Amino acid sequence: MAETGNEDRADGYPSTLGGPVVDARAAIRKKRDGGKHSADEILALTAGFTRGRIPDYQIAAWLMAVYFQGLDADETLALTQAMLHSGELITLPGLSGPTVDKHSTGGVGDKVSLALAPIVAACGAFVPMISGRGLGHTGGTLDKLESIPGMRVQLPSDEFRKLVRAHGLAFGSQTSDIAPADRLLYALRDVTATVECIPLIVSSILSKKFASGTKRVVFDVKAGRGAFMRSPERARELARQLLEVTRGLGFEATALITNMEQPLGRNVGNALEVAEAIDVLHGGGPDDTRELTLRLAGEMLVLAGLADSVPDGEHKARIAVTAGKAFAKFMEIVEAQGGSPRYLGDPSQLPKTERSHGIVAPRDGYVTSLDAFEVGEIVVHLGGGRLRKDEKVDPAVGIVLLKKVGDRVAAGEPLATIHARDAAQEAIQALTGAYHIGDQPPARASLVLERMQAPSAAV
Amino acid sequence: MAETGNEDRADGYPSTLGGPVVDARAAIRKKRDGGKHSADEILALTAGFTRGRIPDYQIAAWLMAVYFQGLDADETLALTQAMLHSGELITLPGLSGPTVDKHSTGGVGDKVSLALAPIVAACGAFVPMISGRGLGHTGGTLDKLESIPGMRVQLPSDEFRKLVRAHGLAFGSQTSDIAPADRLLYALRDVTATVECIPLIVSSILSKKFASGTKRVVFDVKAGRGAFMRSPERARELARQLLEVTRGLGFEATALITNMEQPLGRNVGNALEVAEAIDVLHGGGPDDTRELTLRLAGEMLVLAGLADSVPDGEHKARIAVTAGKAFAKFMEIVEAQGGSPRYLGDPSQLPKTERSHGIVAPRDGYVTSLDAFEVGEIVVHLGGGRLRKDEKVDPAVGIVLLKKVGDRVAAGEPLATIHARDAAQEAIQALTGAYHIGDQPPARASLVLERMQAPSAAV
Repeated sequence: MAETGNEDRADGYPSTLGGPVVDARAAIRKKRDGGKHSADEILALTAGFTRGRIPDYQIAAWLMAVYFQGLDADETLALTQAMLHSGELITLPGLSGPTVDKHSTGGVGDKVSLALAPIVAACGAFVPMISGRGLGHTGGTLDKLESIPGMRVQLPSDEFRKLVRAHGLAFGSQTSDIAPADRLLYALRDVTATVECIPLIVSSILSKKFASGTKRVVFDVKAGRGAFMRSPERARELARQLLEVTRGLGFEATALITNMEQPLGRNVGNALEVAEAIDVLHGGGPDDTRELTLRLAGEMLVLAGLADSVPDGEHKARIAVTAGKAFAKFMEIVEAQGGSPRYLGDPSQLPKTERSHGIVAPRDGYVTSLDAFEVGEIVVHLGGGRLRKDEKVDPAVGIVLLKKVGDRVAAGEPLATIHARDAAQEAIQALTGAYHIGDQPPARASLVLERMQAPSAAV
Repeated sequence: MAETGNEDRADGYPSTLGGPVVDARAAIRKKRDGGKHSADEILALTAGFTRGRIPDYQIAAWLMAVYFQGLDADETLALTQAMLHSGELITLPGLSGPTVDKHSTGGVGDKVSLALAPIVAACGAFVPMISGRGLGHTGGTLDKLESIPGMRVQLPSDEFRKLVRAHGLAFGSQTSDIAPADRLLYALRDVTATVECIPLIVSSILSKKFASGTKRVVFDVKAGRGAFMRSPERARELARQLLEVTRGLGFEATALITNMEQPLGRNVGNALEVAEAIDVLHGGGPDDTRELTLRLAGEMLVLAGLADSVPDGEHKARIAVTAGKAFAKFMEIVEAQGGSPRYLGDPSQLPKTERSHGIVAPRDGYVTSLDAFEVGEIVVHLGGGRLRKDEKVDPAVGIVLLKKVGDRVAAGEPLATIHARDAAQEAIQALTGAYHIGDQPPARASLVLERMQAPSAAV
């Protein structure tokens, strides 16, 4: 794939796409009957839709046909390319080091990006990180960052590029210039029950990701109750397609399938998660959050050619933390994006609620499961996420999980603390229900379920 | 089903259908996942779409989900009722005899309705016949009737009702007041490749048919190369669902599956088919056209309670023809609808082309097949049908098939005559290709492949 320039463009399609170049009805029929689209057909459908030449009702019928008949690797690649080229492609020519990014498919308590980007940047890579908002029961990196007073994440692409170049990282959001076809298509999928379709998910993720300037991505594909892909099989299939299409685009990727049965770490909620990420940047934090952050850092450094092996990469990442370089890098980029660094020095100054409510173990035993989906939903309902798209999130609310799966508990011992604005009777009941206490300790579950690599490809 | 009145109404939905009564996205997801809709859900979807409250892109996605997951009998019945009640219901209270109609799923050379309606009306039934235009390669009764100079088929529903009451029959077209939901839904299906879906076909046919005043219908479901359902299995499934949903609506029906491998009769083309129907009304015409017309008349008379058995019904129909009552009835209704009866007395006065072109057998042998689809397509391209919706049809053009399947032919013997406005080289070649001549006579194919009856229901 050629990166065709770094000027802002409203529409990246070749100007040769003139009149009606596809018979939309015939294309729908072909997919309905299990046929295979050519790359030109997919480009014409995507460009026709984005430019308003093909009406949304035809694309809606096509999406549902795709839901049932699927897209193969060639078709998914063509759709990804068509969406990628529908808008601006951020390029970062002449950097002194390699670009690398991470993409998580979304989970509960997943604050990894906040510490990960500065760690990897402190090791010499450039991390042009474009993140999203909370979606459904999952949190979003942008919402978390905005709990730092003053922090700006809606950056014009020029500023984004300059920040990456100057600091080795930036935390940005998808602008309206990046992959507009994906934005339009996603909005249509959202109202036509065609979101849950792996090839469409793959092309949506990749068209945004590779428009933001990186040439390498480590995918953290979550599996379990708190993930969009509940089964490891579906997560593995999503990872497989992400890797295959990334290779087809001419980029490099590695994927981890990671456990999202229970939330990651102890803190769930925007400011609470920033505080936990700061702990990780100081070498502390809960074991699972620290372990996953360092593992992903190791993977990114390997992919970027800055480490010989994952253990070597993890070692370099740990040194960047111990030496204080990673935290310094985080301070530096937060300040550069308008955030007040004093909140990072003293996280107790971050937004917090006046009230908190403890829940306690109803009996002696072991925590056998802790439902990540339920925990995510409770935090959304406390105000930490959105029930409607136009709502503001409350940075202060959330949950601190004092006990996690495998921990021994005694009757009456605190399990978790709920940080709420008001009385939180419903949250207390729901969170108590999300904990399951049994007599026997559960089998220890792995945090990283599987590692998958794409065959190498020219970049 | 209650017939709720005979005044014109723009929208027949209950006024209690107020605000948003269905979550369209949830409904799409339910059907996508193979779930079953309640009747209320289907009514809300249909009414919401018809009134513009549910956007077409959501209905398009729903239609494609229906294409893959189907609708069961309850759902198809609910959709039919929802579309039936979307507009005016013509009622014919206080008639001195039973109502009965026929519906054909469309074929090539199928001019049966023209003679059938007067025959059955001459036997004492009331036939409120609403017909269509040519569709694809098939002809339409309305186009055929309009080849009689002066004939009006776009009748206001008041006039239609009066004609049926006064003459025992009328030939009308679907007005914009009848089943508007079907018209909107069909237009959307047409552009989203969701036409070929049996439950959607069933609800479309029945919502129009039972809005036109009849309580009984004989379905002539065509199977073969010239039909929309090419396989007898698909035709049988369509017939089965038509019968089941008709019973659910509280009406009565019988279905015949009839052969549409080769065209029906000898004449294909609008005025040519009127002439053949007149021959049938005089007791003549090709064997297959006459046989099918009388058989369908027999079925209609049985269904209407005016004959004890199909042979008895056919006998009564034959007497109506022999006695001249059927032809007189045709003259009467054509004149009442503005047509000049003199054309019926002398069909050679009907519109005709100046030129005709014969095609001859390339070899000795037997006609083993004659492709009805090809013949239909040739007539459309001669101008006898429409390539675009807004085209006018040419009443004069068409084909006279001198030889049909099973006939013995000698090399050089005329097979057919093409009536065209100009040179007809393409039509000559195509028609020659539509005939297949072999050494052995083919097995004789039945005209009526199967008869299917619905269990009796209260009317």
